[in-house]
Amino acid sequence: MERHFDEQLADLKHRLVRMSALAEHMINAAVRVLVARDASAGEPVPGHEDEVNRMQIDIDEFCLQLIALHQPTAGDLRFILAATKSASDIERLADQAVNVLKKAERLLTSPPLAETARIEEMAALASRMLSDSLHSFVNRDVGRAREVLLRDDQLDEMKSVVTDELIARMGAEPSAVVSAVDLLLVARNLERIGDHATNIAENTIFAVEGRDVRHHAEDRPEPPPPAP
Amino acid sequence: MERHFDEQLADLKHRLVRMSALAEHMINAAVRVLVARDASAGEPVPGHEDEVNRMQIDIDEFCLQLIALHQPTAGDLRFILAATKSASDIERLADQAVNVLKKAERLLTSPPLAETARIEEMAALASRMLSDSLHSFVNRDVGRAREVLLRDDQLDEMKSVVTDELIARMGAEPSAVVSAVDLLLVARNLERIGDHATNIAENTIFAVEGRDVRHHAEDRPEPPPPAP
Repeated sequence: MERHFDEQLADLKHRLVRMSALAEHMINAAVRVLVARDASAGEPVPGHEDEVNRMQIDIDEFCLQLIALHQPTAGDLRFILAATKSASDIERLADQAVNVLKKAERLLTSPPLAETARIEEMAALASRMLSDSLHSFVNRDVGRAREVLLRDDQLDEMKSVVTDELIARMGAEPSAVVSAVDLLLVARNLERIGDHATNIAENTIFAVEGRDVRHHAEDRPEPPPPAP
Repeated sequence: MERHFDEQLADLKHRLVRMSALAEHMINAAVRVLVARDASAGEPVPGHEDEVNRMQIDIDEFCLQLIALHQPTAGDLRFILAATKSASDIERLADQAVNVLKKAERLLTSPPLAETARIEEMAALASRMLSDSLHSFVNRDVGRAREVLLRDDQLDEMKSVVTDELIARMGAEPSAVVSAVDLLLVARNLERIGDHATNIAENTIFAVEGRDVRHHAEDRPEPPPPAP
């Protein structure tokens, strides 16, 4: 029974790794459409999206059965709960990749904007944050999780810079407003991908250390009070 | 033991209702700053945000203990898992209210835009979606949950209309670009609040009917395959 449970936990981790790899592929494909101005790069995205959605439903069912059948200890229970939350985050960040793709396709119909280079940098960082957060989660690597948290500030800063640049362009070049708004929204989509990666990294710390780092809870001297 | 578990489930529901009421108050306060041009209306928001964050951490711990101590049946387990997810959604939509407030405060420094009336309508709908989704969850009211799902399309449509209006204004009135971008981003924040309310409504259906309606899974003829 013990051994079987460990195998199922390993299976759960493999499912998360596969799901995350698909989502990362979706981000990279959507950004490639924008940067390389190559519409065909986006073709795998809809199929991947369906697969990611299916995987989330399956992971939730798998976690429910793991809990119901094995009545895991507090530590394992925490890990399983964190796994279902991480799967939700992967599913939602994959939705953001779809949103990037829609705007990228529309942007192909107008002249490229110089600010696209900033978007490419943001996407590279967001994609790395996802990969690192997921690996921190399955390997229970708190150090790597903390690095992801730091990089989220960097991504937000990059978003602010490109937003200011795009607002300046819109004021100076009314004909560029439509495409500048689309690019500004792509920057927000990438910021949200980084937010979800950050959530996964926080789930790692929560699962491993048994305390909650969300909302800067690390500043709180006491753990949350026990339920009555 | 049975009775104690039922009391704890009731306690969990009360916690979610209180958390959601705070978040709804935050949305309404932030939008009032924008619409009534009254900065003082936003004063309760930071305190509410801290409280919402604390409540989410406490609800997660409470759910972990409920599962560990009572080893609930599959149906109750599903409800508890859905409750932790709903608490995450409430926390994240409260963050969106904070984002609305930041932009509302900045918008007070420039002349009001006519499109603000659209934002007021969107906020009223988003706020009602949150209230209805939460009540559908705690009362296991699938009919009311389905109404929330329908209203999400309406909110998205309102966001598209105001986005188009704001883009037209930016093209015609370069001096209004900065405030029009802020208002456009407020519309996105409200859309995201509606998305989180929709997630809560989906959690209701998942918890009550034991099947997954996310990703239009209602079109799938078979339930998800059991875990191996």
